[in-house]
Parts: sequence; C-alpha cells; structure tokens
Amino acid sequence: MNPTERLEKQMQFLIASDALKGVSRKTSLLDGSRKENSAEHSWQVILLAMTLVEHCEEKIDLLKVLRMLAIHDLGEIHSGDVFHFHKSSESDQKEREAAKQFFSVLPEEQAQEYWVLWQEFEEQATPEARFAAGLDRVWPSIQNYFNHGGTWKEFGITLEQAREKNKHIAKASKSIWEYVVQVMEKGKAAGYFCD
Amino acid sequence: MNPTERLEKQMQFLIASDALKGVSRKTSLLDGSRKENSAEHSWQVILLAMTLVEHCEEKIDLLKVLRMLAIHDLGEIHSGDVFHFHKSSESDQKEREAAKQFFSVLPEEQAQEYWVLWQEFEEQATPEARFAAGLDRVWPSIQNYFNHGGTWKEFGITLEQAREKNKHIAKASKSIWEYVVQVMEKGKAAGYFCD
Repeated sequence: MNPTERLEKQMQFLIASDALKGVSRKTSLLDGSRKENSAEHSWQVILLAMTLVEHCEEKIDLLKVLRMLAIHDLGEIHSGDVFHFHKSSESDQKEREAAKQFFSVLPEEQAQEYWVLWQEFEEQATPEARFAAGLDRVWPSIQNYFNHGGTWKEFGITLEQAREKNKHIAKASKSIWEYVVQVMEKGKAAGYFCD
Repeated sequence: MNPTERLEKQMQFLIASDALKGVSRKTSLLDGSRKENSAEHSWQVILLAMTLVEHCEEKIDLLKVLRMLAIHDLGEIHSGDVFHFHKSSESDQKEREAAKQFFSVLPEEQAQEYWVLWQEFEEQATPEARFAAGLDRVWPSIQNYFNHGGTWKEFGITLEQAREKNKHIAKASKSIWEYVVQVMEKGKAAGYFCD
C-alpha cells in the first residue's frame, strides 16, 4: 500500500472517530450543565496522565499511556458507554468486538497495533495499562462530588460499593487513590451516597 | 513542596481544566448536530497526530507533540475560542496571558514546563510544534466539507482565503496538506465557498 492509500484509510478511520463526541457518558461536567461525552473524557484522562505521571510508583512509558487513552473508548461508538457498575462479560465482549471492528478500517499493521494497545489497556497486565485504567476511574468520583452525588445518588451506590469498584486506582498510584478516597469520604459526609 | 501538596495543586489545575468542555468552537461535528468544543477538539487532534505521524517528513518526538496538543487550547478557558480568520495580535496576546495564568496554579516548575510547551506550539519554530500546529488546522476543513460549507459559508470565506490561511499545514506534512487541498477543492466544486 502506498502512502496516499494509507493516508486515505487513516482519514476514513479519523472521520469515523468523530462520532465519539456523540457518545454520552453517565457522569456530568463539573459545572453540572450536561453529561460528559467520551471524546472529551478521553482528552481529560490524557491530561490527567501527563500531569500526574510523577505519582505512579512504577516506571512507565508515558507515550504508550497517552496513545492507549486516546483510543481506549473508540469501541463505544458502536457499543455505547456502559455505566461502570453495570458492566458485564457480555457488555465487555460487545465493546471488544466493536473496537476490533472499528480499528479494521486502518492499514492492516496499524489496525493490529491499535487492537493490541486496546487489549493491553483492558487486561491491565502492564504498568502502563494499570496507570491508564486507574486514571480512567478518577474523574467520575470528582464529577459526582461536584454534582452533589451525581451517579452515586442516581444509581443508589453506597460508599463501600464505590470503594470496591474503584480500588484498582491504587494500582495506578497509591497517592492518587488516597486522594479519590478522601473525595468519596467528603461525599459520604455530605450525604451524596446511598446508605 | 511534598508529593501530597503537589498532587493537591495538580488536581486544582485539572479541576479548572474541565471548563474546556464548555468552550465552543465555530465549527460543527461531522454529523452537524452541534458545535464542537475545545476539549473534544483537543482529543481529536491527538488522535490525528498519533495516527498520521508517519506522514511527517521531519523526525519528531511524538510524546512532545501529544503533550503540546493536550494543553494547546487551555488559554481559551479565560479568553474564549477565536475564529481562525479573525485572529489578531490582540486576541493572541489575550490567549497568551490567559494560558500563562491558567498554568500558574501548578507546582512552579511544572507550570513553567507547560508554559514553555504552550509557547513552543504557538511559535512553530520546532518540528514538533509545526506538526502539532499544522494538524490543529486539518479538521475544520473536513468539518466544513461535511457540513455543506460550515464556517466557509457562514463567514463568507473564499477558497483562496482558506488555502492561504491553512497553508502552514504543509509544514506539518506535504501529503496531509495535499489531502486537505483536495477536500477544499471538492468543497469549491460543490459550491461550499463564497465566490
């Protein structure tokens, strides 16, 4: 495949990716004005990763983390965003197939590269994937705190459930996890959780 | 400053950055459903950069490019997005001051690091900055083509003006610039430009 043909396929992929801006998440912006979408969420986590990388206890390749985060939600364009507490092996499988399909428009070895990166994020078996996947869970707690309970209240979540469901943030960074726990505890004190 | 104090300042910066999702750009999503915001635009350009890096003729540090793109619009939170054809030395200066101010909440040396990176993007004097700044201008043409003229029609832009205003894309990559020119020419043939 010549460079022009490669560019054509890559642009098709990028044009299709625009739809991530239309995938609505369950959590709201900090000002409460509307739900967040998965494209702006992806940018937010990239900014978190590059700003907070010093708090990761493991040695990591930041470029790999940022690339992983930029593509980690692209499967949602066809499968939709699933609320973290409602994820199942079926919804995971659906997003998995959607992601693989989504990357397949790219030149073959690049499609494979993105698919491997996407799976690495999901499996959390490398320091980069643990850091990326942990940070992916930081913002929802901040958002819920700013939104007087947000999805904690909406879906009847207890502090214990939120702690349990997010504890892998500690594998990204112990200090970031401590920060998130403090936010949750302030949320508990303010009555933002279900009892 | 200890790691906990650093983390506290970094989280303040990240919380303030959430407002980028509320900065509306002039161009619309490819499906025409609404205007794009600067946070999702930042994600889009990051995805462009990592996907199209092979078309850059210069040797570049991709991590630097992605970090640059993640922060390049943060000044807009206080100064607002200015339509590319309406930029002036005054609006540039306003955004410049806003960016410097915005970074200042970070730990001092990190604030300085982001400020240097932000200026590097603006000055376009390095291969990384030229690649990042060129890619930053690719999507508006695609968006306008998908939106039957979009801001070309809305602001009375001619093909010649659009070419002139975007020609620095060629400094990012000649082949990407050729692709954009073809999109503009298809737009001209479809009557999407002002005559």
